[in-house]
Amino acid sequence: MKLASLRHGRDGALIVVSRDGRRFARAHSIAPTLQSALDRWEECETELRKLSDRLESGAIEGEPLDVHALSAPLPRAYEWVDASAFINHVILVRKARGAEPPPKLYTEPLVYQGGSSVLLGPRDPITLADPAWGCDFEAEIALILGDTPEGTTTKQAQRHIRLILLVNDVTLRNLVPEELAKGFGFFLSKPASAFSPFAITLDELGEYWRDGRVHLPLRSHLNGKLIGDPNAGEMHFSFFELIAYITRTRSFGAGTILGSGTVSNADPSRGVSCLVEKRMREILENGQALTPFLQWGDEVEIEMQTKDGESLFGSIRQRVIPRNHDPHQPS
Amino acid sequence: MKLASLRHGRDGALIVVSRDGRRFARAHSIAPTLQSALDRWEECETELRKLSDRLESGAIEGEPLDVHALSAPLPRAYEWVDASAFINHVILVRKARGAEPPPKLYTEPLVYQGGSSVLLGPRDPITLADPAWGCDFEAEIALILGDTPEGTTTKQAQRHIRLILLVNDVTLRNLVPEELAKGFGFFLSKPASAFSPFAITLDELGEYWRDGRVHLPLRSHLNGKLIGDPNAGEMHFSFFELIAYITRTRSFGAGTILGSGTVSNADPSRGVSCLVEKRMREILENGQALTPFLQWGDEVEIEMQTKDGESLFGSIRQRVIPRNHDPHQPS
Repeated sequence: MKLASLRHGRDGALIVVSRDGRRFARAHSIAPTLQSALDRWEECETELRKLSDRLESGAIEGEPLDVHALSAPLPRAYEWVDASAFINHVILVRKARGAEPPPKLYTEPLVYQGGSSVLLGPRDPITLADPAWGCDFEAEIALILGDTPEGTTTKQAQRHIRLILLVNDVTLRNLVPEELAKGFGFFLSKPASAFSPFAITLDELGEYWRDGRVHLPLRSHLNGKLIGDPNAGEMHFSFFELIAYITRTRSFGAGTILGSGTVSNADPSRGVSCLVEKRMREILENGQALTPFLQWGDEVEIEMQTKDGESLFGSIRQRVIPRNHDPHQPS
Repeated sequence: MKLASLRHGRDGALIVVSRDGRRFARAHSIAPTLQSALDRWEECETELRKLSDRLESGAIEGEPLDVHALSAPLPRAYEWVDASAFINHVILVRKARGAEPPPKLYTEPLVYQGGSSVLLGPRDPITLADPAWGCDFEAEIALILGDTPEGTTTKQAQRHIRLILLVNDVTLRNLVPEELAKGFGFFLSKPASAFSPFAITLDELGEYWRDGRVHLPLRSHLNGKLIGDPNAGEMHFSFFELIAYITRTRSFGAGTILGSGTVSNADPSRGVSCLVEKRMREILENGQALTPFLQWGDEVEIEMQTKDGESLFGSIRQRVIPRNHDPHQPS
């Protein structure tokens, strides 16, 4: 089933969405918010699936869905943990900032803790106070976990996965080198991330979900032009390995979001899911970067389609605007 | 006023506590949880203060408080941001792991993002799977913020502070060097933090709150023996400066917790608020560390008293136990 949240209060109003993404049914009688459904998933899942089946079969008509009415599936979350599980991305990004790859590049995932009290919806603008910060997008896949105890193994991992969705992990590239040199990891360089309209259950992926990976291309457009469609199946560490890694020393509560890191393929013909990779490839080919980081007015779109053209998660589409810009006025 | 949360569900049940910490009144008619009060602070604050006044005056008797019945004031939070604002701590800890102090040590605070889906109560044990991880406590002060927008200045900062409390930021010291070498900051080395029984409004601090700092000693005991009482007023970056720093590139939602970092004084006679500092001082004096990191069975206690002996926040008192140990059985 596909779940989403209408803009409403701080946590949104939970809805069930039809497979074609065009209609929805309100789920407030089952759970008012997605977080409350995750908190009582064992009770809520069956009821939500029944509602989804009735919407899909036409037993209930539902209401027409306007993606602009949606917040992130979780407009705020108790934890946002982001890995960097695509090795090609790690190598290119470190090369771009003149840093060495981490010592255990192939055997231990890179993971950082992100902020999660403000998460953006699929059409929310990226507010950028200063274009000199080097604003970049990063197209990723993420899981929403249920309660996941310390010491979870790769074999136990799947039972803790509740939903899967897309994320744009916005990064201020020019703030990264100085920040990482301080030794405490990303902070100012990671403003609010944005999420796809729909968070879906794993069964919606069918054959595309194998070995803890999504075997489909993730397509990113910049100002309407395709900039990359790398296959997410090239993820070096599976989501099962990421879950086992993050739970080595602590537990995670229901609603924790776990990201894959920027989807990236070794084959350069698949393009990129972020601008810093494109810039690094340009430097390697031409001696200089030609593509600028995001400027005010630029628009990024991220989407994942099945081979039949079904948009699994709906699209993230965000325009970059100045800070204190009124988003209700055209930019 | 003093607020606390009784263990109840995932978010606790909000109570108002008498100044002496002995009695409480349930606040569910105003807000069921502390998070819900923070979400609607403008509406709730006056009503909570009225309830607090009635409890204090004896107009309502209240119920006797058992600290073991308390969870953390926020048993889960949308954001846990921890600074390291005591310069003496930064210098000693970096020396202990043979690392250089950060380049802008005196002009730009160190800040990391911690996990916040599982926060421990004041009597919850510290579960430690492997004592070889080098488990340490860190006694700190923290704020709970209301909505705090991007670009908040030091002058605007105080209006976003809702509550103040104590925290034990547990750290697995022997996991830190390898983790920080990866460049993404702390993750496995920071298991769940624990919080004081009471979160209080700034007016409860009276004259002890000045210039965005708490001018009182923070006392830590290890196995019943005083190990340090450094004055928290020696904080190099004030909480106002920390708020201005963290909001440079993004906003924070109500309920964000912001820590001071380990309280530490340059004067060694004030002792320590964590074991790694004590070990470093031993190495400098004797050539080797004598104090081991926390072992199973060790007990840490953290408390802040006024000059009149009033315990402002109640005490954090935690025993270290093996993972999978039943906390309801004596250790």
